[in-house]
Amino acid sequence: MKAFLASVGHAAVVDRPYPEARDDMAVVRVELAGICNTDLEIRRGYMAFSGVLGHEFVGIVEAGPPSWVGRRVVGEINFGCGICGSCRGQLERHCPNRRVMGIVDADGAFAEAVAVPLRNLHEVPASVSSDEAVFVEPLAAAFEIVEQIRPVLGSTCTVLGDGKLGLLVAQVLDLAGARVLAVGHHDSHLGLLRRRGIQTVLANAWDHRATDIVVEATGTAAGLQAAIAATRPRGTVVLKSTVAQSSALNLAPVVIHEITIVGSRCGPFAPALRALEEKRVDVASLVSARFPLAKALDALDHAAAPGILKVFIEP
Amino acid sequence: MKAFLASVGHAAVVDRPYPEARDDMAVVRVELAGICNTDLEIRRGYMAFSGVLGHEFVGIVEAGPPSWVGRRVVGEINFGCGICGSCRGQLERHCPNRRVMGIVDADGAFAEAVAVPLRNLHEVPASVSSDEAVFVEPLAAAFEIVEQIRPVLGSTCTVLGDGKLGLLVAQVLDLAGARVLAVGHHDSHLGLLRRRGIQTVLANAWDHRATDIVVEATGTAAGLQAAIAATRPRGTVVLKSTVAQSSALNLAPVVIHEITIVGSRCGPFAPALRALEEKRVDVASLVSARFPLAKALDALDHAAAPGILKVFIEP
Repeated sequence: MKAFLASVGHAAVVDRPYPEARDDMAVVRVELAGICNTDLEIRRGYMAFSGVLGHEFVGIVEAGPPSWVGRRVVGEINFGCGICGSCRGQLERHCPNRRVMGIVDADGAFAEAVAVPLRNLHEVPASVSSDEAVFVEPLAAAFEIVEQIRPVLGSTCTVLGDGKLGLLVAQVLDLAGARVLAVGHHDSHLGLLRRRGIQTVLANAWDHRATDIVVEATGTAAGLQAAIAATRPRGTVVLKSTVAQSSALNLAPVVIHEITIVGSRCGPFAPALRALEEKRVDVASLVSARFPLAKALDALDHAAAPGILKVFIEP
Repeated sequence: MKAFLASVGHAAVVDRPYPEARDDMAVVRVELAGICNTDLEIRRGYMAFSGVLGHEFVGIVEAGPPSWVGRRVVGEINFGCGICGSCRGQLERHCPNRRVMGIVDADGAFAEAVAVPLRNLHEVPASVSSDEAVFVEPLAAAFEIVEQIRPVLGSTCTVLGDGKLGLLVAQVLDLAGARVLAVGHHDSHLGLLRRRGIQTVLANAWDHRATDIVVEATGTAAGLQAAIAATRPRGTVVLKSTVAQSSALNLAPVVIHEITIVGSRCGPFAPALRALEEKRVDVASLVSARFPLAKALDALDHAAAPGILKVFIEP
């Protein structure tokens, strides 16, 4: 089958053996996949990954237990060992032996098909389109914040970054009852939030007023210092950007103002799927472009350009 | 009166006007003061402070309301405005308009006398010696951790740093029921903890095993990266060191392992005083040296030397 292979310093669409369903793995025929900033980082060498890229997808189960075959699914990306303390504590996302689809030791979804553990699959409700379903994984990452931080309801909240993740985070925090201000560089992106009644401001007009919660979703190292400066004493910074390289940071304000910084990664699929089913978040407006799998390299280049939101790959 | 004045690039014992009791301020005749690492940082220019240094002290109220005169007291160092939301919420320590004794806009305790707001005073029980009472302020900073993080009881906890603060933090976390491992560079300092049944290890023999809570009390920028690496997924790093300058940090592990970093500064005096009264912590072993106020400059030089714990200044 065709698959987009990435390894340190090299990336190309190649021919790969078709995955097989065995043990607890199903084979999902990929209908649509999405490019995440992590994919762009991996292509630059992050995680030293070598394999098929891609971890946002929707597809049809093609091989596996008969009860699953033919169902349209999305899949959680952390493949836990199933036996360690983390896995037994329902925290497979932190299994120390986990493989991660398209990121650590497991082939990803920029391919005609992908193998996924059965316990990672979630059926997509009929009312959720496949375009929407591709967003379940990043939307779950936005829901993770609501699992980690409380109270969100009634809190003032600044979201830094109007890229894909920032736009999802702002919507989810608004849903959860926070008073959200989204700060970004792209008025067109922010417009998507304004249409939903969320306050927005361009970064150069932002007054940096301190709020209870500040979410760093700029994807840049400089974002964290700005986030700290805009957090009230005893407030919380949520760190969403995985910036691979070290950068200079002054954390004295974190101590002086007793600020809490919470690292936040993958989240729960179930509430994300429900939010899409109930049409509570707008993801359709985030789609910037579509490329066939054969042009995956062009798709990644396009996704890396400034101002581009979600880019789809269609096998 | 004699007072040790510090301003950017200059420090000397000088003659200053004796403070006056007015409004809500009492005048405390300083019996004994302690040197904190923050004093050393301020002398190097941190906070751009200009005034009398010193914020750890015990003394006798000399002027103020008759009910207070003659009492032996310690004093909280944050002087809140008393009217803002933080102050009304019992959080004067985070009042945005606060002055801070010997740190921000308020003369400190390396002097014959110091002015302190009445509401900041705590009487010292007769069973607590003045040597011990000087430790209330840094001990309160250790108790702050227990106010911020829960659960401490039953958690595994690593304390990085066997300086003054690290030794107090390890004792307080042990008191609070954590399983503590203290990591340091001075076997003699760690011995103080071992005598109280606390596990210790020299930094070069430490296995870096991950624990639920890691307290960064090394006073160095490098300490935080080590603390992050020794925290279990979803665990908590408590950041106690105020390192004034920026330093290179890689926070990708914070996101990947969803680690929480909690900045922690001043704490509550009441439980610290109670712990001293009940002889639950050993502070006497932390006293390294005593200098008369006239030799305050020598005292600060001595306190800055490697391996030195608490240095007292006696007016």
